[in-house]
Amino acid sequence: MLSAQHQPGAPILRRLHEHLAQVRLARRLGFDSVAMGQHYLTTPYQHLQTVPLLGRLAAEAEGMAIGATVLLLPLHHPVELAEQVATLDVITGGRFICGVGVGYREIENEAFGSPFGERIARFAETLEVMRRLWTEEVVTFEGRFFRLPRVTLTLKPVQRPHPPIWVAANSDAGVRRAAQLGDAWVVNPHATLATLERQVALYRRCLDEAGKPFPADFPILKELYIAPESAAARREAQPHLASKYQSYVAWGQDKVLPREDGFEQPFDELVRDRFIIGDPAFCREEIARHHERLGVTHFIFRLQWPGLPQAKVLRALRLLGTEVIPRFR
Amino acid sequence: MLSAQHQPGAPILRRLHEHLAQVRLARRLGFDSVAMGQHYLTTPYQHLQTVPLLGRLAAEAEGMAIGATVLLLPLHHPVELAEQVATLDVITGGRFICGVGVGYREIENEAFGSPFGERIARFAETLEVMRRLWTEEVVTFEGRFFRLPRVTLTLKPVQRPHPPIWVAANSDAGVRRAAQLGDAWVVNPHATLATLERQVALYRRCLDEAGKPFPADFPILKELYIAPESAAARREAQPHLASKYQSYVAWGQDKVLPREDGFEQPFDELVRDRFIIGDPAFCREEIARHHERLGVTHFIFRLQWPGLPQAKVLRALRLLGTEVIPRFR
Repeated sequence: MLSAQHQPGAPILRRLHEHLAQVRLARRLGFDSVAMGQHYLTTPYQHLQTVPLLGRLAAEAEGMAIGATVLLLPLHHPVELAEQVATLDVITGGRFICGVGVGYREIENEAFGSPFGERIARFAETLEVMRRLWTEEVVTFEGRFFRLPRVTLTLKPVQRPHPPIWVAANSDAGVRRAAQLGDAWVVNPHATLATLERQVALYRRCLDEAGKPFPADFPILKELYIAPESAAARREAQPHLASKYQSYVAWGQDKVLPREDGFEQPFDELVRDRFIIGDPAFCREEIARHHERLGVTHFIFRLQWPGLPQAKVLRALRLLGTEVIPRFR
Repeated sequence: MLSAQHQPGAPILRRLHEHLAQVRLARRLGFDSVAMGQHYLTTPYQHLQTVPLLGRLAAEAEGMAIGATVLLLPLHHPVELAEQVATLDVITGGRFICGVGVGYREIENEAFGSPFGERIARFAETLEVMRRLWTEEVVTFEGRFFRLPRVTLTLKPVQRPHPPIWVAANSDAGVRRAAQLGDAWVVNPHATLATLERQVALYRRCLDEAGKPFPADFPILKELYIAPESAAARREAQPHLASKYQSYVAWGQDKVLPREDGFEQPFDELVRDRFIIGDPAFCREEIARHHERLGVTHFIFRLQWPGLPQAKVLRALRLLGTEVIPRFR
């Protein structure tokens, strides 16, 4: 997972070219997919917007899956998003993964005129309309937020019935929603392993209740940093990761987590059982432990935060691709 | 200008790769820019969506300008569009051209919940907010359609103050708006030369009234098809262009043109003084005639319509690049 958020004043053209180089290297190393998130009005970070950048990245990522983790459904119109996702599915040769979420930053909802208190209802209605547009020939819809007069989405996605819908969720209520509405829950990167174990059990129960099978491809998002030695990994990652998590506090990300998993604690405690930071052996063990305890099969690693130099990002990619991934093939 | 509209049932992955080949060839031939339009719910055509496709095309178009002709402002939120355009400006290395229009297809406005009768007012307000987001540090806005609570667009466009705003317009009222609100009017491809001459005079008067200079880069959109011999050019273009213009009638494009310029007439009359279809010598003369009579300096040629085979498109690009463009350098 690329972090397309960059420090204020960072040379953004150079950052773009660094992203392209990251994707080319990841492809050569045999990574399966590349992903990025979506936010708006990302003070203090400069943020490259998701849909045009995913289009651009696809040129470097031939043969890889490309995912949005995640599109903020309550901010968008379902016709707009259904057409953009169908187009991204064509551009990626039928390898797009449609990650979606409700969002948590009130400023985004307020600016888009999409009340924060309506975001759950908008999420569900937007997703319903998108699915119908992708799968039905003629759609007439009269909902709480959207009205469609007999319309046809002429460009259908390459993947039928549509790209996989991966629902990101942090809270228990979100996990229930992911089971009900999604093709898979994207396990969140912010909670501790103990919390996630409890939430995976909840997810299984909700899938059972809905009569849905456990997803074959079960994804987790994870902050990961790898260096030849664990002490260096910790030292190099800390300033960037710590300042990113301070921004999360300012953005309100911690407010949607279970209460015991807040971010306002010393970095060593923040890291424990939550991020994977260490040497290759440690990373292999942690990945195996997450796989065993949670049943996750698809790891989306974010190994880059605002300000981490490109050389470090590329070295981490190389170590992950050569020292860690082959162990799990 | 690519036409990313394809016949129902056409193999869309192949069409995408044809577009990529078209852009690569145009770049090798020394074309200055590549552009595409925007529409939604494009029955009967399959339409690749503009923002993700422009992102993808940028990879093949290094060094070329990339334009949207045009983004339909009344369908979008200004924060969304301002961030997407800023990102496209980064992706193109500061070579994005932001073409905008009010649209004319009621179905798009109805589906997006953006009343057709409000499209002019929404266009103006959206453009105003986008400009402020690009150029001001902190924006607070309270308008008829949008409310922004003290927000900052952290990613500014590479081009300062922002990418050129080219306003497409067909009607006289639209030409006035283009003079008032845009950096340039994109002369429309649908009217006859006589009508355009009258409208360019109107445009000059409106610029004078607004105290604005005539744009250094004055663009026209033009349907063009070129073959080694004029009879063949006519024969090959007719079925595709005629059926595209029948769709325009169904979509209502002709309703926004001056009354004398409707589309419901025999093809030979439709073509006359309106499209450029012929051999290289004829195309050179027609381009020179448009330049002399209208003062246009930037020609955006659409030489491709739903169903025209790729070999013909590439041949037309080659003839244009080798037999026509060098005459005007």
